[in-house]
Amino acid sequence: VIDRLAIIGVGLIGGSVALALREAGICSRVIGCGRQPVHLEEAQRLGVIDTYSTDPAQAVAEADVVLIAVPLGAMGPVMAALAPGLRPDAVITDAGSAKACVVADARANLGDAFPRFVPGHPIAGTEQSGVAAAFPSLFAGRRVVLTPVTETDAWAITRITEVWTATGADVEVTDVEHHDAVLAATSHLPHMLAFGLVDSLARSDDPNTIFRYAAGGFRDFTRIAASDPVMWRDICLNNRRALLESLSRYRADLDAIRTAIEQGDGDQLEHLFRRAKQARDALTFNAP
Amino acid sequence: VIDRLAIIGVGLIGGSVALALREAGICSRVIGCGRQPVHLEEAQRLGVIDTYSTDPAQAVAEADVVLIAVPLGAMGPVMAALAPGLRPDAVITDAGSAKACVVADARANLGDAFPRFVPGHPIAGTEQSGVAAAFPSLFAGRRVVLTPVTETDAWAITRITEVWTATGADVEVTDVEHHDAVLAATSHLPHMLAFGLVDSLARSDDPNTIFRYAAGGFRDFTRIAASDPVMWRDICLNNRRALLESLSRYRADLDAIRTAIEQGDGDQLEHLFRRAKQARDALTFNAP
Repeated sequence: VIDRLAIIGVGLIGGSVALALREAGICSRVIGCGRQPVHLEEAQRLGVIDTYSTDPAQAVAEADVVLIAVPLGAMGPVMAALAPGLRPDAVITDAGSAKACVVADARANLGDAFPRFVPGHPIAGTEQSGVAAAFPSLFAGRRVVLTPVTETDAWAITRITEVWTATGADVEVTDVEHHDAVLAATSHLPHMLAFGLVDSLARSDDPNTIFRYAAGGFRDFTRIAASDPVMWRDICLNNRRALLESLSRYRADLDAIRTAIEQGDGDQLEHLFRRAKQARDALTFNAP
Repeated sequence: VIDRLAIIGVGLIGGSVALALREAGICSRVIGCGRQPVHLEEAQRLGVIDTYSTDPAQAVAEADVVLIAVPLGAMGPVMAALAPGLRPDAVITDAGSAKACVVADARANLGDAFPRFVPGHPIAGTEQSGVAAAFPSLFAGRRVVLTPVTETDAWAITRITEVWTATGADVEVTDVEHHDAVLAATSHLPHMLAFGLVDSLARSDDPNTIFRYAAGGFRDFTRIAASDPVMWRDICLNNRRALLESLSRYRADLDAIRTAIEQGDGDQLEHLFRRAKQARDALTFNAP
């Protein structure tokens, strides 16, 4: 049971966590924090938060559980701002899509509270953003990956595991490096490919005709290109090494396809497409 | 009204055309043609076709409308085989995803019937294939692009337009070159990117973990990687020039993203993502 939950950054993720924990009936009071009162008022009106403050230290002052759900670039400053207000027994987690950078920010800014910070990443979301898009079942059956480090208190891990489990998520623990490499490949790289394709076509000679001939395959392929630009800028800047490695490997594989097309190597192309189809057909997703 | 419709290649597209025209009540009899009797028997059992033949000339012998819905690589041989059987008043269309190659095949193989061949491309489909996946509303509200050439008879264009319109599709006319360039960009390129990504990850060190962390974004992005390998091999081989051009342009744009990540150029990344999001948000799709 959570007495006071502080949500720093009340957008799609932060708002959905608040709604999910309320719906689970384990959270009596939610304090929101953000920079813009207009968004916090909207969150309050939507019943996502009870009260709010634009001052992180004030927002966390009474909280036993703190969730930081801001873009990666804001993690450091937000942690520095809230650290002085933390209760000595508060546990803290985050929802950042890359973990090495968040752990570094936490180590630099949370002081004594660092062992009570449990880095987390809910692998859930939609291309929508903002609190109006939040909904309580966003995490149901989805994976939340925790990446504690050696200093992290065991009881804090247990507590944060309980919190995320209460949202309906399946919680897993892995290490920071592994998380960042896997997410670069399965999430960050595909976002670059989709953003890149839509931008490339939008800047072509006749984008209107081009987009007019786009069908369902294109729609699904590019859905993630409608994602939040600031969030994705920050992911690029903060998971740079792993993402560049993924991009390099992918470019080499794409060049091999290109060469096969150039050489008219139908056997090679069919073989590759067949292998990809087999892998894709074998996948199951619990995402909505 | 169609007296006898011949469907050469009774898969997702051919089968769905037959079902759509039956449902529209304008088609009294459908003859299927394919290489494998077992598939034709399935199509018959499903009520998609009335009778069948594995001999293209025999299948078209009584048909006033002929649809060729086979992979691009089979177009030439199939046209050569059916040409001797064509009625002198039969109109012919196809469903190939690239048009220059189909027009060349038709010119080389249809003889006197070439002016009655109206190249077509229904921009519809799913990642499924085979007649069991066929359904009558596949073309409802979707685009069918016709690419007639100078020799094409006007009355044949009118007739084929009526046929595709009866499936529920919106028919448009454009030229071969334009069609092939646009489809390379909006369909053939994305398929390469998705096939390439899934294959790349499937061949990585630990594909199981990687795929386990994949969420809804990855699922939608890679849905088209489950498409038919033979169909896509043939598209690569038959729309080679336009596809290679699309791949080159895309690689240059992806390299620019890569450079911005390398240099930590957040402004450039945010600008690009914002432009892509804006373009993607502005798109509407009538696909299911």
